[in-house]
Amino acid sequence: MRALFVGRFQPLHLGHIKAILEISKKYEVIVVVGSAQESYTIKNPFMAGERVEMLINEENFKNLNLNVIPVTDTNNHAIWVKYITSLLPKFDIVYTQNPLTKFLFEKDGFNVKAQKIYTNEDGKIYSGTNVRNEISNKHEDVWKKMVSADTYKFIKMIKGDERVINLTKQIQ
Amino acid sequence: MRALFVGRFQPLHLGHIKAILEISKKYEVIVVVGSAQESYTIKNPFMAGERVEMLINEENFKNLNLNVIPVTDTNNHAIWVKYITSLLPKFDIVYTQNPLTKFLFEKDGFNVKAQKIYTNEDGKIYSGTNVRNEISNKHEDVWKKMVSADTYKFIKMIKGDERVINLTKQIQ
Amino acid sequence: MRALFVGRFQPLHLGHIKAILEISKKYEVIVVVGSAQESYTIKNPFMAGERVEMLINEENFKNLNLNVIPVTDTNNHAIWVKYITSLLPKFDIVYTQNPLTKFLFEKDGFNVKAQKIYTNEDGKIYSGTNVRNEISNKHEDVWKKMVSADTYKFIKMIKGDERVINLTKQIQ
Amino acid sequence: MRALFVGRFQPLHLGHIKAILEISKKYEVIVVVGSAQESYTIKNPFMAGERVEMLINEENFKNLNLNVIPVTDTNNHAIWVKYITSLLPKFDIVYTQNPLTKFLFEKDGFNVKAQKIYTNEDGKIYSGTNVRNEISNKHEDVWKKMVSADTYKFIKMIKGDERVINLTKQIQ
Amino acid sequence: MRALFVGRFQPLHLGHIKAILEISKKYEVIVVVGSAQESYTIKNPFMAGERVEMLINEENFKNLNLNVIPVTDTNNHAIWVKYITSLLPKFDIVYTQNPLTKFLFEKDGFNVKAQKIYTNEDGKIYSGTNVRNEISNKHEDVWKKMVSADTYKFIKMIKGDERVINLTKQIQ
Amino acid sequence: MRALFVGRFQPLHLGHIKAILEISKKYEVIVVVGSAQESYTIKNPFMAGERVEMLINEENFKNLNLNVIPVTDTNNHAIWVKYITSLLPKFDIVYTQNPLTKFLFEKDGFNVKAQKIYTNEDGKIYSGTNVRNEISNKHEDVWKKMVSADTYKFIKMIKGDERVINLTKQIQ
Repeated sequence: MRALFVGRFQPLHLGHIKAILEISKKYEVIVVVGSAQESYTIKNPFMAGERVEMLINEENFKNLNLNVIPVTDTNNHAIWVKYITSLLPKFDIVYTQNPLTKFLFEKDGFNVKAQKIYTNEDGKIYSGTNVRNEISNKHEDVWKKMVSADTYKFIKMIKGDERVINLTKQIQ
Repeated sequence: MRALFVGRFQPLHLGHIKAILEISKKYEVIVVVGSAQESYTIKNPFMAGERVEMLINEENFKNLNLNVIPVTDTNNHAIWVKYITSLLPKFDIVYTQNPLTKFLFEKDGFNVKAQKIYTNEDGKIYSGTNVRNEISNKHEDVWKKMVSADTYKFIKMIKGDERVINLTKQIQ
Repeated sequence: MRALFVGRFQPLHLGHIKAILEISKKYEVIVVVGSAQESYTIKNPFMAGERVEMLINEENFKNLNLNVIPVTDTNNHAIWVKYITSLLPKFDIVYTQNPLTKFLFEKDGFNVKAQKIYTNEDGKIYSGTNVRNEISNKHEDVWKKMVSADTYKFIKMIKGDERVINLTKQIQ
Repeated sequence: MRALFVGRFQPLHLGHIKAILEISKKYEVIVVVGSAQESYTIKNPFMAGERVEMLINEENFKNLNLNVIPVTDTNNHAIWVKYITSLLPKFDIVYTQNPLTKFLFEKDGFNVKAQKIYTNEDGKIYSGTNVRNEISNKHEDVWKKMVSADTYKFIKMIKGDERVINLTKQIQ
Repeated sequence: MRALFVGRFQPLHLGHIKAILEISKKYEVIVVVGSAQESYTIKNPFMAGERVEMLINEENFKNLNLNVIPVTDTNNHAIWVKYITSLLPKFDIVYTQNPLTKFLFEKDGFNVKAQKIYTNEDGKIYSGTNVRNEISNKHEDVWKKMVSADTYKFIKMIKGDERVINLTKQIQ
Repeated sequence: MRALFVGRFQPLHLGHIKAILEISKKYEVIVVVGSAQESYTIKNPFMAGERVEMLINEENFKNLNLNVIPVTDTNNHAIWVKYITSLLPKFDIVYTQNPLTKFLFEKDGFNVKAQKIYTNEDGKIYSGTNVRNEISNKHEDVWKKMVSADTYKFIKMIKGDERVINLTKQIQ
């Protein structure tokens, strides 16, 4: 049985990792890196290739049968599911947190489950928005604990934290 | 070290499989399924998703660290390499049989190697064109031996051979 | 003499119907369903095909010589009028409520008239925005009277009211 | 019951007219003017708007409940049927002469019938290609009888015959 | 030595003119008219062609070796610099006020300098936003002094001031 | 008075240079580098930026008031002229050798003149096709005399002759 896990991974965080590990117990997982055409914006600072790299290099996924596939948006919601399924192998279920993604897959008859939400010890939700906010507020000790060691190292290596800070500061 | 293996996989054949197995001895391989927007034409009968499925399901690849990524063409050769690298993780070398792909990657400074060509016992080259020709000529005993057992089963299951025959017959 | 009636029809409401009936007294009417690529958003919940169906099925239009044509936006205002006229038969006048549409047609030398605005007995304007607001506020008794019997039945059949409510609630 | 009639109408000819009249006995007909983005080429000399105008003005269709809708191609066969159905009202059957159109609609589960072919008294098939060839060979007496009186008048008015001749002569 | 000067020129103002004259002392200047696909919006009221015309007709530039090139945006920041460099001759340095443009060129290894900002005698910054605001506030005596005599005449001739006022008033 | 000179400049040759010099006696000339999205194909080996550079660097044009503008094709002939005029300043006349370009501009009411054809002492026509053929046949002494000294030097510098030979040899 195969599951689709759809996210934007801006960036990959512990919530994603826990969810994918959980789903992998039951399914072979195809990870879709959505909005692949987006980068260098406040909401989407990382290029698709960088996001794919975070997922492929992740130590926690080393024993999984993951396949990671970047997919661009279409400018037409009515055809997006058809577009994405034309690029992907057959699958049995879709996991996503995004309400519109859920909506569109269900409209076309797919089985969709809401991705489980995870929180840290302080009850703070692991989410891309939260990670990006902590980065732009220069709380490195905070966001460092919201991502894996591999992702932290990668973001530092590509100066992704400076990029997020610059995008927040300079561009409106 | 990571290698890019770029092909169209119309369909996956034994030449691809031998080449990827060979390259995998030295590299982690990213398999790029090119011309992902193409399907239902004589030259590109299979959808990207079907081609991804052939690669993901391939028994011969079960122990490899493959990642399979479909990539659409751009209508502008000058930006295609930049486009594809924006979607992919970093890589050290590119393998391809396509002269233009080789040309464009080399122009942008990448290390490109020509993919080794393999032949069957009769000296016939394993190539997508040859496989499609044998299918359209209804030589099932011939093309069956040019692809893996998994690919043969998959093509029969999706009635891909009928599709190739119909596209050749009806559409010019 | 032929008139163009340009709207988005999200959804078709009594204001549209009264205006089209009025214009039809003097003109053969081409109804352009604009922003045809949009659907499943708060501002554009209905697919172009659904909007075309509301117009084609409308009992009030049964004796009219209407032709309904969905047209997508272009990402370039300067060429939109040329684009739309390349898809349409010749016409003598354009009716629209949208100021930009009016502006662009007039710039290219077309005769444009502002579409008449209609109100219900309480003086409330019939407009797509008002209908969508009433739907998302679950005032079914209110919005039901702002659309025709056919449109009401159609929206209920496709569960369009639930869609509007979900889009408002879940997606920002 | 509603039928889709899909053609390119380069130009509208007597074969189309006879087929549509026949289908209209049993169905409400939506006429799709395909390849709407094409014009001023040898294979597609007429703009979508001109082709829509031929259909809308046709005297033979005056009592029919036709709706004429121009639809552009997509660069991806796998999503074209989804694209076109997102623009159209629901329909029960598709009529077409084009094998690929037939193929793609059937793949997505639609009921498709081959459009009946009609010939003139000399056994010559009414087809767009034949009409364009007669025009480019300046056999006005021949092509005049392959189209309706309205279409003949329209082509002469827009100097469509000169256009076809020029495109054949000058552009390869 | 060749410099790229990248702006949107909505409209050309005295700040642009002073900066280009200054840069021209040391460089042959290629003027890039960015967001060329935009027009008839509040932020981008003028068509690319109108903006090119302001630059080409400018008396202050008559002795310069300027070349003016309109360039459209891409929907993908990661490939924009590659796209623009595929359209332009080689250059040694980039001047721009836009932080994202600076960011993207620097990421790809180009030498970028922030364009100098100029103010009028009252200390008000010459900027497109300020000029458009003064136009929409009908302060003709103010905006007239923020642009050159040629640009003022051109804007009046094409009724660009009325356009800005209408766009502000009517469209949100 | 301003003239548009429309060509593809694959590459710039003496026929272009003579024609532009001739037209420049009467007009300010805007040179449009057409099919700007094309490169690395047999018919269009050079990138738009390279073609712009040939024109901008040309010694023969040093005293002219040329402006060089690359323009991409549209996939829709009916809107191309509107697209190109939205990017360009006003002009009074169009010079071109391409029959379709002539056709489309005339259809929209522009004054179009056929560009004069020039031949060398042997009566051979200066044309892009002829230059590319001589390059691919390795007749360097021949093609060298069909282009200017600047263009010859530039093509050698970017190894454009090798590129043309490789494209002819390897890609079909």
